[in-house]
Amino acid sequence: MSIDLLQSKIRKLKCPIVVGLDPTPELIPPELLAECRKRLGDTLEAIAESYLCFCKGILDALKKLVPAIKVQTACFDALGWQGVKVMQELLVYAKKLGYYVLLETMRTDVGHIAAISAESVFGGLSCGTERVFPYPCDGLVLNGYLGSDGIKPYLPWVHGEEQKNLFIVVKSSNKSSAEVQDLLSGDRVIHTAMADLTLRWNGEVFGKCGYGQVGAVVGLSSPGAIPALRKRYDTLFFLVPGYGAQGGVAKHAAYAFDKFGHGAAVCAARSILGAWREQAGADYPEAAVSAVEKMKKQLEVYVTVL
Amino acid sequence: MSIDLLQSKIRKLKCPIVVGLDPTPELIPPELLAECRKRLGDTLEAIAESYLCFCKGILDALKKLVPAIKVQTACFDALGWQGVKVMQELLVYAKKLGYYVLLETMRTDVGHIAAISAESVFGGLSCGTERVFPYPCDGLVLNGYLGSDGIKPYLPWVHGEEQKNLFIVVKSSNKSSAEVQDLLSGDRVIHTAMADLTLRWNGEVFGKCGYGQVGAVVGLSSPGAIPALRKRYDTLFFLVPGYGAQGGVAKHAAYAFDKFGHGAAVCAARSILGAWREQAGADYPEAAVSAVEKMKKQLEVYVTVL
Repeated sequence: MSIDLLQSKIRKLKCPIVVGLDPTPELIPPELLAECRKRLGDTLEAIAESYLCFCKGILDALKKLVPAIKVQTACFDALGWQGVKVMQELLVYAKKLGYYVLLETMRTDVGHIAAISAESVFGGLSCGTERVFPYPCDGLVLNGYLGSDGIKPYLPWVHGEEQKNLFIVVKSSNKSSAEVQDLLSGDRVIHTAMADLTLRWNGEVFGKCGYGQVGAVVGLSSPGAIPALRKRYDTLFFLVPGYGAQGGVAKHAAYAFDKFGHGAAVCAARSILGAWREQAGADYPEAAVSAVEKMKKQLEVYVTVL
Repeated sequence: MSIDLLQSKIRKLKCPIVVGLDPTPELIPPELLAECRKRLGDTLEAIAESYLCFCKGILDALKKLVPAIKVQTACFDALGWQGVKVMQELLVYAKKLGYYVLLETMRTDVGHIAAISAESVFGGLSCGTERVFPYPCDGLVLNGYLGSDGIKPYLPWVHGEEQKNLFIVVKSSNKSSAEVQDLLSGDRVIHTAMADLTLRWNGEVFGKCGYGQVGAVVGLSSPGAIPALRKRYDTLFFLVPGYGAQGGVAKHAAYAFDKFGHGAAVCAARSILGAWREQAGADYPEAAVSAVEKMKKQLEVYVTVL
């Protein structure tokens, strides 16, 4: 199962970190952007090319250190098709390097639209005698506001032989997440109602690691909520965003793990990608390595991955 | 204000209909797809090209009949960058023909990611001395599960001189929408909590038509809820999906309008795009025109746009 794949990669590297590939022009070293503009002019292609070079450099540098990456579609969509094209290249590249790869779309859709996305991302598209996979990845990060109709079309590939993962945004990492997600409904807050749905979408299917194929995004915005969520949803793998640039700390992230240091991975993007800005003289891949090693050490104070 | 633009276009054509451009291979006439494959081979480019020709044909046919269109990003994203490229061309084409154009992304994001999308879609990207707009449109359809952080980055362009619109998914058109959206919290269900947020995001800014720049998606899945929503949120323009193929009917959609027949527009996609499949001998633009005229007549039984 792919949730076992994720957990085993984490155990092998003793590193429960998912690096977010969320490039923005500010995160690209100026000389790299300038070099791309020299070749391609002051165009969207040039920015997209700089994202590609930059992210490949990050992926090359972290491949023996980090088990998984998460690609933020919004950052690439922002550049139009030129951005999407390099994002597709990056997904292929990351898979080749052996990363566990997540695609974060944050969408929620009605059933027939969700079915189109599921078919494209997980099932592949039929072109003549071939099947083409525009977005090769191990799983998707989705929103569940539209309920089961928007998630069920993905499940044949989650519980079938393709063994894809889903991570549903239960509690997001931003401050205003409380506005909807913490509203009380009966004896549950909305984000636990979403976690209950996530359990239902997972069904009674668990990997060897004890976790299901459908996991939950549980952000560090309300660290107080994490211990209770970990206890109550002991079969949901938690993806934990909000570390670093968004203000989350290791002490709080640690609550997302079980007693073996399993069942969770902490996400960081800007604090890794943009580390070169705080490390005078270091090039960006070196700076990213240092930033990951630092984050790993911070986590190790509270979490030991057995 | 762009909400006045939408309302005035609807009044001019006496047609409160938004046609959804949600192409799928099944909706493309086989001879059109075959012609594209003959030119471009059995490739994603060929499917994308067939979407472009098909949707242009629809836009040409409906331009004197329909005031607004809504482009479903998922359908184009599914083809990879080739799909995104033709979607961008379609947005330009639709704007040129004079349509009010909505882009439906259904995303919900943390603040700094929402800011990237807002900058790209509404603000445009700086390329040399030019500003480039990859996704020219009048407004976006977004999800609000992450709360204000994910919406506020768009507001400078909503309330600024660019006058862009947002439509927030309050109550979706699918059957399982109740799972989250109808949960009771205090004296509100979650979808009214989302509508309250939508009101807040709109602020006290209203167009001449009496409606605000930030509207709500209110689907036909629970027609019983619509009259109360219309009464309570009398300044929110309602986008009403779920008509036709999804099972919604004119009698129920009528509750979304005010007494002048204003403040709402009904969306239909498959029932218009795929009308050629039910009309023997008609080509697809003719069939789409007939389907719109039929839908318009159905609505006119219950709604008169003054």
